[in-house]
Amino acid sequence: MFSGAQISLYPMADDFVGIIMQSLSALDTHREHLRIETDDISTLIVGPPERLFPAMRDLFVAASSTGTHCVLSAAVSRGCPGEPDDPICRPGEGRMPGEALDARIAEATAVVKAAPKTGRHVACQFSLYPLGADRHMDEIYGCIAFLKASGVFDRPKNFCTRLGGDAGPVFAALAEALTRFGPVDGHVALDVTVSANSPTRV
Amino acid sequence: MFSGAQISLYPMADDFVGIIMQSLSALDTHREHLRIETDDISTLIVGPPERLFPAMRDLFVAASSTGTHCVLSAAVSRGCPGEPDDPICRPGEGRMPGEALDARIAEATAVVKAAPKTGRHVACQFSLYPLGADRHMDEIYGCIAFLKASGVFDRPKNFCTRLGGDAGPVFAALAEALTRFGPVDGHVALDVTVSANSPTRV
Repeated sequence: MFSGAQISLYPMADDFVGIIMQSLSALDTHREHLRIETDDISTLIVGPPERLFPAMRDLFVAASSTGTHCVLSAAVSRGCPGEPDDPICRPGEGRMPGEALDARIAEATAVVKAAPKTGRHVACQFSLYPLGADRHMDEIYGCIAFLKASGVFDRPKNFCTRLGGDAGPVFAALAEALTRFGPVDGHVALDVTVSANSPTRV
Repeated sequence: MFSGAQISLYPMADDFVGIIMQSLSALDTHREHLRIETDDISTLIVGPPERLFPAMRDLFVAASSTGTHCVLSAAVSRGCPGEPDDPICRPGEGRMPGEALDARIAEATAVVKAAPKTGRHVACQFSLYPLGADRHMDEIYGCIAFLKASGVFDRPKNFCTRLGGDAGPVFAALAEALTRFGPVDGHVALDVTVSANSPTRV
């Protein structure tokens, strides 16, 4: 199954190029497991979800540790029928077909609660798009039930769900949303925004 | 049908707050047709697609006219079954049910070619997610055929399609993608990134 993301990092600073360049070293320990290609809009990261989300987390924690208001935006996808398969994408452990929604909610919640902390607080919102499924709202509502139990749920918003907390469990929750909901081998996408150091108080 | 977007504007500058605040006046002529609510991550704009995309276009043209590297990111949605209906969202003219893909491609192409120019060049990439449809890839491939004929197609990328050109036809192409593809009254979402003034040359 092909999986990966188009990600962009937006430091709101005159020295945005410097902050991005410095942050890239956070990807060094992940590079051997991922395919990474950059243009002027975004960086493509191809690899299995269990490699992809820790890489995004480490990149964002590095950028936001400068204290600058930073945003990471990502279009994440798995199982798109229009993409070629890629050996680098083979996930370490698959989900069982036919597993009930309640069991998946419990498993995803346990993973997020056990996720290592980074010490960096982030705000996040994202949308889950399970494609090619005629009962896609059931999977979306199941995912929302998981998020409410996960410890990083903040509040519902129109078109998306807002999370908040340590970057460790927040990125773990995004990984669980992508892999644990929607058809096992189907096409699922996330539209993700993660923000840190905003001067706007909510 | 409920439609709208969660949009964020990212000026890559120390004075990002000032640039955002100045740009908001570009929304003044649109406000009476839209519901607008802001928090620290994004601004919700609720309204019909024919109002929504011109408002996004004018906001982004205003921000990027400062010469600063700016990005607009948006999660756009129509027909989500989880959202309440809203009188402000009634579209001015609907698409006919059952219209063939070829006819829709031709109509969308004509609209983009006739779109007024703004004088502002932008780079864009976006993903189309037609939800709850069992033949969703047919609609995605139909949309890609339209984009290739539209005059603003740049190139395919993994997980998305890249556009480039004047902001007028580019935002018109996004509106056509949302409204002309996917089920007539169904749930369709876009994940949009628009960029201007990037120092990275491609």
